[in-house]
Amino acid sequence: MLKNCFEVVTLNNLLTMKVGDKYYRTIWLTEDEKAVNIIDQRFLPHKFVIEKLRTTEDFIVAIRDMHVRGAGLIGVTAAYGMYIASLEGMQMKDFNDYLTEAGKKIKATRPTAVNLSWAVDKMLEEIFKEKINENKVKKALNTANEIMLEDIEISRKIGEHGVKLIEEISRKKSGEVVNVLTHCNAGWLAFVDYGTATSPIYAAFEKGIKIHVWVDETRPRNQGASLTAWELENCGIPYTIIVDNAGGHLMQNGMVDIVIVGTDRTTSTGDVANKTGTYLKALAAKDNNVPFYVALPTTSIDWNISDGIREIIIEQRGDEEVKYISGLAEDGTIKKVLITPANSNTANYGFDITPARLITGLITEKGVIQANKESLEKIRNQTN
Amino acid sequence: MLKNCFEVVTLNNLLTMKVGDKYYRTIWLTEDEKAVNIIDQRFLPHKFVIEKLRTTEDFIVAIRDMHVRGAGLIGVTAAYGMYIASLEGMQMKDFNDYLTEAGKKIKATRPTAVNLSWAVDKMLEEIFKEKINENKVKKALNTANEIMLEDIEISRKIGEHGVKLIEEISRKKSGEVVNVLTHCNAGWLAFVDYGTATSPIYAAFEKGIKIHVWVDETRPRNQGASLTAWELENCGIPYTIIVDNAGGHLMQNGMVDIVIVGTDRTTSTGDVANKTGTYLKALAAKDNNVPFYVALPTTSIDWNISDGIREIIIEQRGDEEVKYISGLAEDGTIKKVLITPANSNTANYGFDITPARLITGLITEKGVIQANKESLEKIRNQTN
Repeated sequence: MLKNCFEVVTLNNLLTMKVGDKYYRTIWLTEDEKAVNIIDQRFLPHKFVIEKLRTTEDFIVAIRDMHVRGAGLIGVTAAYGMYIASLEGMQMKDFNDYLTEAGKKIKATRPTAVNLSWAVDKMLEEIFKEKINENKVKKALNTANEIMLEDIEISRKIGEHGVKLIEEISRKKSGEVVNVLTHCNAGWLAFVDYGTATSPIYAAFEKGIKIHVWVDETRPRNQGASLTAWELENCGIPYTIIVDNAGGHLMQNGMVDIVIVGTDRTTSTGDVANKTGTYLKALAAKDNNVPFYVALPTTSIDWNISDGIREIIIEQRGDEEVKYISGLAEDGTIKKVLITPANSNTANYGFDITPARLITGLITEKGVIQANKESLEKIRNQTN
Repeated sequence: MLKNCFEVVTLNNLLTMKVGDKYYRTIWLTEDEKAVNIIDQRFLPHKFVIEKLRTTEDFIVAIRDMHVRGAGLIGVTAAYGMYIASLEGMQMKDFNDYLTEAGKKIKATRPTAVNLSWAVDKMLEEIFKEKINENKVKKALNTANEIMLEDIEISRKIGEHGVKLIEEISRKKSGEVVNVLTHCNAGWLAFVDYGTATSPIYAAFEKGIKIHVWVDETRPRNQGASLTAWELENCGIPYTIIVDNAGGHLMQNGMVDIVIVGTDRTTSTGDVANKTGTYLKALAAKDNNVPFYVALPTTSIDWNISDGIREIIIEQRGDEEVKYISGLAEDGTIKKVLITPANSNTANYGFDITPARLITGLITEKGVIQANKESLEKIRNQTN
């Protein structure tokens, strides 16, 4: 039985996701437009918790401590953070300085996230076009809303283009189940709606194409096992959780038809920075002739760099993500347990680089292209 | 400061490991020779628990429920289990039947473990050479001791051969730290002493070579984060725990000089079955020109098969290993937590196949050889 997990609902006239019997986007303004609601993703998949962000500091904590995460959603959250900063600062003499300072603080929360600084810069640029404080605030709200709507539209288009790849495989397999493998969560929860890597999956499911998703657990933060699995479960899309180690075996045995992942940053030559472990899956895909696609908004392309391994600095995160793991204990509470010797050293590189040579194609809102300088350059100035 | 973690001590004149201020092998007879002590590895790295096995049933539980694990140690434990069975059965009229039955039960505990059935068959063969019950018991004890000593000797020789590879790298790096990456636990805890993949590491450390080990967590059972890390910590060998996803990034950035892993089964052509995820590391090693070695006793070579991917059936294990994880909770107890949606499907392929083409060499007790049919055939009948 097909469940339609995306429906147009009246809440601000935006496409939103159904969770239980309510429809949500991953971020939305409160009715009085004085605060912003998010889903505190740290509690998923065990609890669905909505958090209200009222101050710039709330936004900083929410982004830094990963209540929200994911390229698109970080950008949109940062944009709304700047709007809230404008509400806070509008009575101050040094309103502009306050905004600039807030922007710096918000940018510093997740240094690798390109959308984050892009959104903050865009907000400041637009806000500073206005002279009057009240107009600055209005402009902030409008710009944040626009960034949010654009995020949804980009995700939708990535699905529209990417679904053709899945349809093609489905045709070749005479309608048999298409097995997609994905790593981490470049999903609905990582954007405002649809996601990027998941958008073609959702689109295929809506079209009635038989599909099954291998969900990489994605240590150390387990975004696959907790977030992607939760999303797919919620939509009724068949999926199976595997440990990150298992994908190679599956590909060796013809159990994966296509890999689709997201990305945090793509170079002008098509190298891709994504969640640590992506590179290993790309190697296995190459070794077994499995098509490997990366879904991305063209806004996440960094046109200034051309060598991912040399030029992208990989964020190192804390020890505790490796040493401890959170889950639902028998008593129904979420508990943290230590899974290493207490004194162990760990290293925690959050991302890795998948070189363009391992990538079959990039699924963008402007179409599916090859991962190379020429193809990227061609879409650079193309309108959608 | 160098700690010497292997010292000859008076306990039965065997090489044993230091844990705290006591020296241990992973298995040893009690003084009265009526029972056998093991380390109950389920509690590591959080607690060091010694368990006394007094009855055949104790051995069956210990092997089946993985109080002990690892190719070599399972074999030796099974051998001592047969010795204890001989003590139990020697007053019975149907002593031989009792032994045969005990052997069947012990073999059934871990059906894929090649060393297990080898050890049981070897014990029965030797025991049945004797006619008098008392001599059968003596033969059982002697044979178990021999199997144990042989396991130690094989591990020691793997270290002796493998350390040359590390020395060579150390020379090339002018004595700078040699970074070894290992997956899972083919360590002291998987054998009676030294281990296989770890044996060259221990030998290098004893020689004063500067060494550092990247320890793959090894989901889903985390043998790296719990067992290998505990071993190295205990010996004072510098190590860093990483999630299984991180190795590719490290190799891309020149942070790994050599990969050494173990294996459960090797084909006559040099394909290797090892813990799931090994194949992904081998691909990354190849892609970055990092030497990739597999350490193994030649007893784990299956001469009857030549195509790992087609001929080795990969054990599928339970859902709960993927969905739940155990660790030390804040209250000091070991707790299990759920890390996926409660209803998720999982797949749990315990091993994968690393094709010979990705393997730089095999470190055996007979020397370091290439992973191909010719080289393997050459050592097949060679004495140590």
